[in-house]
Amino acid sequence: MHKLALASLALTLPLPAAAQEAEEPATPSSVVANAGAGEWISIAPEDLLVMELAPDTQGDPRQVVIQLMSPPFSQPWVANVRALAEAHWWDGTSVYRVQDNYVAQWGDATEQKPLPDGVSSPMATYESVLEVVPVQTVYAREFEAMVRRLVEESEPVSGYAVNPADPDATRPPSYADPYVDFTTFMQGWPIGHAHYPEGLAWPLHCYGYIGVARDYAPDTGTGAELFTIIGTPQRHMDRNLAVVGRVIEGMEHLSSLPRGHGELGFYAEDEEHLRTPIVSVRLASEMPDAPAFEYLASDSESFARYVEVRANRNDPFYTVPAGGVDVCSVQVPVRRVGE
Amino acid sequence: MHKLALASLALTLPLPAAAQEAEEPATPSSVVANAGAGEWISIAPEDLLVMELAPDTQGDPRQVVIQLMSPPFSQPWVANVRALAEAHWWDGTSVYRVQDNYVAQWGDATEQKPLPDGVSSPMATYESVLEVVPVQTVYAREFEAMVRRLVEESEPVSGYAVNPADPDATRPPSYADPYVDFTTFMQGWPIGHAHYPEGLAWPLHCYGYIGVARDYAPDTGTGAELFTIIGTPQRHMDRNLAVVGRVIEGMEHLSSLPRGHGELGFYAEDEEHLRTPIVSVRLASEMPDAPAFEYLASDSESFARYVEVRANRNDPFYTVPAGGVDVCSVQVPVRRVGE
Repeated sequence: MHKLALASLALTLPLPAAAQEAEEPATPSSVVANAGAGEWISIAPEDLLVMELAPDTQGDPRQVVIQLMSPPFSQPWVANVRALAEAHWWDGTSVYRVQDNYVAQWGDATEQKPLPDGVSSPMATYESVLEVVPVQTVYAREFEAMVRRLVEESEPVSGYAVNPADPDATRPPSYADPYVDFTTFMQGWPIGHAHYPEGLAWPLHCYGYIGVARDYAPDTGTGAELFTIIGTPQRHMDRNLAVVGRVIEGMEHLSSLPRGHGELGFYAEDEEHLRTPIVSVRLASEMPDAPAFEYLASDSESFARYVEVRANRNDPFYTVPAGGVDVCSVQVPVRRVGE
Repeated sequence: MHKLALASLALTLPLPAAAQEAEEPATPSSVVANAGAGEWISIAPEDLLVMELAPDTQGDPRQVVIQLMSPPFSQPWVANVRALAEAHWWDGTSVYRVQDNYVAQWGDATEQKPLPDGVSSPMATYESVLEVVPVQTVYAREFEAMVRRLVEESEPVSGYAVNPADPDATRPPSYADPYVDFTTFMQGWPIGHAHYPEGLAWPLHCYGYIGVARDYAPDTGTGAELFTIIGTPQRHMDRNLAVVGRVIEGMEHLSSLPRGHGELGFYAEDEEHLRTPIVSVRLASEMPDAPAFEYLASDSESFARYVEVRANRNDPFYTVPAGGVDVCSVQVPVRRVGE
């Protein structure tokens, strides 16, 4: 499979040690592989949810691990999600909607199941006002540099694209975003900011990120019905729905489910047998044998380098570095520990 | 399912006629539903490929319809793809790689099958120089306006984000792109441009778009081994691989396939039974009962309105319009005809 396998080797797999000599161009994977132990941060067990789906048709287990959103974002809904897990509320519910290039959604398809005491739709906003903008991030730095350059030199965006006549030239990568003033990473989460430097910020709907389904406003959803993005990021949902976490392992068990053909990808009446039963959802803090994970600190040097390398691949497969990267294409590195 | 179904009703389904009165805010779907017959363009049968996969486990057929890329882009590879289809070369091959949030790839897993005469890796570039930039597109228009505003008013990007204090204010949507100077649509295809206004342009790797697998440069691939994006757009591939088309129907038959667990998502040795057999691939021009399709002209008024509405949803579900839209989130409307 040599020829076929080369297409994205450097992108997706850690390189063998022999390829990591100083002469080899860095890849996102090699940067992550070389990150120092002190640059990784443990995910607390109370921030991990383990969802056990019914075994697949071969009898193989299907476990999905979710990391809950960090403060200050979406905390009223995250508190509900913890309460629902502690009540074992999702046990016996199902994944009842899978819409191609959009979402897989789970919870109580009957809409009859009573919620635990205290779980209701929060009267809260999807944004947070941050007193201090984390200026250490590459995104914030690059945005400042871009604004300065645009204003002072009156020479706008074109300077930030790769020059095909000089593909090896070093230039600042572009982190322009169609949705917000700028993007950054905080505590390992991709974040949108508006009206810099005032610090209004909110989490984003990238692939594998988990949102709270809701009815029309003022309803904000409870967290009992959750969805994850299974295709193109759905950034138009940002600030319109609460992002409560992301899938960090087992995403394929949701993304590869058969699509529904009712309205909006709900399984139609004659497809209800396709719903995937949820056996249990537990906080890792409740489990004796819970898996443990850590993420690469987004204010670390290795993370900054990881973003930079993603934006300008110059390993042998790529002939034209992109010159920029979309925030949702910077998957925050997460790994299992203790195995 | 009322409560659950509301989450994206306006986004994904044409509204019933009663909801399309003048008082209702436009949605992307309502704009498309109201487009004039003259704004739709037929796709020529020689630009359509019909791929028949083996029936699924229920015995249901799995047909994937592909539209081939329009000139001037990627035409040497498109010619190869037509020759391979005419030779019935893919019959009996398989989908042999499915990597989550990346690609599904198909062709000859044995790497032994001889190619038809004349099919080889083209010595060609992935970009085209366009003499005339299509200034009729909203993207080009908005880019010009943005540049003018940036330079003349020294008031950069922040003005283009939505103002949360005044969410109803009308403002020009943002089409900023992290990868290129600006994006546009030509003949129904999303396109990246650099060095405006010189007109160097190339097609993009959005969800469902089809690229040509290759070895290291100078190899450019033949078109025999193809892949489609099944998750986040992979824009770092732009200008590094040839985009030869997109899936316009039946995408779920590729995106929901079981993921491979060999390197890079190839099916591992003990998973080879998971490969999906390809029964046949035919040009519609060869088929007596071929399906027919048309797309919404990207230089039409309805398309411009469609992009604008996508960028600023103000139907009742959304409380904060995004204020912009990513080029890959503007799916070009395509529909079946004659049924």
